[in-house]
Amino acid sequence: MIRRLCIIGVGLIGGSLARALRAAGEVEEIVGASRDAAHLQKAVDLGVIDRYETDLSAAVAGADMVFVSVPLGAMRTVFEAIKGSLDTGAVVTDAGSAKGSVVEDVQSVFASVPAWFVPGHPIAGTEESGVEASVAELYRGRRVILTPLPETRVEATLRVRSMWEATGAVVREMDVKHHDEILAATSHLPHLLAFTLVESLARMSEKREIFEYAAGGFRDFTRIASSDPVMWRDICLANRDAVLDLLHHFGKDLDVLASAIRNRDEKSILQLFQDAKAARDMFAG
Amino acid sequence: MIRRLCIIGVGLIGGSLARALRAAGEVEEIVGASRDAAHLQKAVDLGVIDRYETDLSAAVAGADMVFVSVPLGAMRTVFEAIKGSLDTGAVVTDAGSAKGSVVEDVQSVFASVPAWFVPGHPIAGTEESGVEASVAELYRGRRVILTPLPETRVEATLRVRSMWEATGAVVREMDVKHHDEILAATSHLPHLLAFTLVESLARMSEKREIFEYAAGGFRDFTRIASSDPVMWRDICLANRDAVLDLLHHFGKDLDVLASAIRNRDEKSILQLFQDAKAARDMFAG
Repeated sequence: MIRRLCIIGVGLIGGSLARALRAAGEVEEIVGASRDAAHLQKAVDLGVIDRYETDLSAAVAGADMVFVSVPLGAMRTVFEAIKGSLDTGAVVTDAGSAKGSVVEDVQSVFASVPAWFVPGHPIAGTEESGVEASVAELYRGRRVILTPLPETRVEATLRVRSMWEATGAVVREMDVKHHDEILAATSHLPHLLAFTLVESLARMSEKREIFEYAAGGFRDFTRIASSDPVMWRDICLANRDAVLDLLHHFGKDLDVLASAIRNRDEKSILQLFQDAKAARDMFAG
Repeated sequence: MIRRLCIIGVGLIGGSLARALRAAGEVEEIVGASRDAAHLQKAVDLGVIDRYETDLSAAVAGADMVFVSVPLGAMRTVFEAIKGSLDTGAVVTDAGSAKGSVVEDVQSVFASVPAWFVPGHPIAGTEESGVEASVAELYRGRRVILTPLPETRVEATLRVRSMWEATGAVVREMDVKHHDEILAATSHLPHLLAFTLVESLARMSEKREIFEYAAGGFRDFTRIASSDPVMWRDICLANRDAVLDLLHHFGKDLDVLASAIRNRDEKSILQLFQDAKAARDMFAG
């Protein structure tokens, strides 16, 4: 049971956590925090949070759990703002889509990784955003990855794990680097491909006539290109090494396919498509 | 009104056309044809076709409309099989996802492009296939592109147009090359990206652990990688030039993004993502 949860950044992710914990009866009071009072008031009106603070150090005072769900580029500023105001015994966790950069930010602000910080990542975003889109069921059956460090207190990890389990999520632990590689592959690279494809096609066709002939497959394929540009810029930069590595490998794989098509190598093309279909049908099964 | 429609290749596309025309009361008799009697019997059992022939020349005899919906790699064989058996006054159209290669096939079999042939392409596939997946509503509101040639009789194009309009589709006419370029961009390239991505990831992770952490966006993005491998191999080869051209340009665009990430060029990355989101939100509006 959380006595007072402070959510810094009350959007889809923070708002859905609030709703889920409230629905589960696992939290007494929820304080929202950000710089945007109008936005926070909307979250109060929607019943997502109980009250809000626009001063982050006031917001975290007295909280036993602090959840930071802001774009990766804003993490460091948040840690600077809450430094010195956290209660003894408070646990801090986050929702950043890359973990290496958040750990670096925490480390640089607090000189070392504090025992009360548990890096986390709920894998449950959609291309929607904002507290208006938040729902209590967002995390049900979804994966939440925690990447505790050697410095992290076991009890802190357990408290964060139990918070997520109360939302219906399935919690996994892994190390920071493995997380960042997996997410680069299954989330960051696909987003970059979708953004790049849509932008290329938009440039090809001034009048957008081209999109008139896009069928359902294209609509699904490019849905993630409607995601928040600032959030994704931050992710690219925060997970730069893993993303660049995957872009490089993907580019090479695409070259292999182009060569096979150029050489009319029917067998290799078919093999690639069959392997892809088998893998896709298995995981989506 | 079609007196006798012969559908060569009774899968999702052919089966859905049959169902739609039947529902609209626009056809008297539907004859299915392919080499697979068991499959055709299933189409009879499902009420999609009235009867079938496994001999293509027998199948087209007496038909006033012939619809060829087989993989692009099988088109030429079909035209060879029906040559000499078509009724005077019969109109032939097809459903190939690339039009240049079909026109070449017809030309090489009939020495020139016959006045009764109307190249066509209903843009309405899904990653499903087979007559079991066919539905009368598949074409409602969807685009069907016809690419009549200078040799094509106007009356033949009008009859094919009117057949498609009876299914609820919106018919557009354009030239062969323009069709093939548009489809390479909005359909062929996205499929190649999805196939390549899934196959790359499957190779990266022997145990497929990586897919456990794929969220909804990834599922949508890769849905088209479940499409029929043979059909897509044929499309790559049939629309080879346009596909290679787009793969080349897309590779360059991806290099530009990689450079921006490497140089931490926040402004360019954000601009690209914002442009993509704006274009995507507009066409998917």
